[in-house]
Amino acid sequence: MNIFDASVPQLAKTLTNLENWLAAATSYADKRKFPVDNLVTARLAPDQFAFSRQVQTACDNAKFIPGRLSGKEWPAHPDTETTFEQLRARIASVQSYLTTFTAADFADAEERKISLPWMEGKWMFGQEYLTQFGMPNFYFHICNCYSILRHNGIELGKRDYIGGVPLRS
Amino acid sequence: MNIFDASVPQLAKTLTNLENWLAAATSYADKRKFPVDNLVTARLAPDQFAFSRQVQTACDNAKFIPGRLSGKEWPAHPDTETTFEQLRARIASVQSYLTTFTAADFADAEERKISLPWMEGKWMFGQEYLTQFGMPNFYFHICNCYSILRHNGIELGKRDYIGGVPLRS
Repeated sequence: MNIFDASVPQLAKTLTNLENWLAAATSYADKRKFPVDNLVTARLAPDQFAFSRQVQTACDNAKFIPGRLSGKEWPAHPDTETTFEQLRARIASVQSYLTTFTAADFADAEERKISLPWMEGKWMFGQEYLTQFGMPNFYFHICNCYSILRHNGIELGKRDYIGGVPLRS
Repeated sequence: MNIFDASVPQLAKTLTNLENWLAAATSYADKRKFPVDNLVTARLAPDQFAFSRQVQTACDNAKFIPGRLSGKEWPAHPDTETTFEQLRARIASVQSYLTTFTAADFADAEERKISLPWMEGKWMFGQEYLTQFGMPNFYFHICNCYSILRHNGIELGKRDYIGGVPLRS
């Protein structure tokens, strides 16, 4: 088990799933004749991030995780998206960044010291960061995107969330 | 990076977080003077699992993952919980099961062939199962528990979701 396999392909696949949910929401909005961008500000609690910020944060997690674990610079995104079209472009930008990684970039990742601003100078090992912070945080925002769309009537199910898996025979 | 570290302690910690959310919901219900068990059937979409089934399924994921990866039998749970008290007992039972594992149980886990009923005879490697199915599925139901409670007014935040992390200096 290595950190590359446990992160980059799974982040990329999950972002592809997210893209599919945005496409499903767009189809649903067209069919029901409402502007899909009405969903951009949807949220499940008044003090929860709105849908757009859930997508932005999931995208940030997906670039921060491999960026921090490899020490490779990530693209900047100023969080200005206000439409589905712009959110889809944001996802595509991070997908493009993810394609730049290979397993070799993660040779030192397990033992790398990861320090985030809120840690006030303290740090975690790369593998702790991935398992205990990075991936749970990513799934949190991904699941919030999913739940906000489901709550608003978009037909999504567990298969749309998991995406394709390698079945061997 | 090994499969034990990537699964058992993280599953256990996240179930502890879930227990804390149930306790927070109970306090909130007491304060607002409604029976906390009103939340057992709450859901965010009419065709989504209710809260009780989200907890049951998260608990199932937390026992299936190490059980399947190690080949160790897991306790049966008949899904009869209808109260918060019973749901908390369910979580405690799985927590107890998780304490029976050590890293040695996972010596063959990465290469173990994992086959689930819906795979129709096909299989995944243990590490693929963990990364691409087991953990995402676990977080899905955990996040649904969280979102259902948040949507119903319970005060929870990202720290309650992530739980404690090892900060080194």
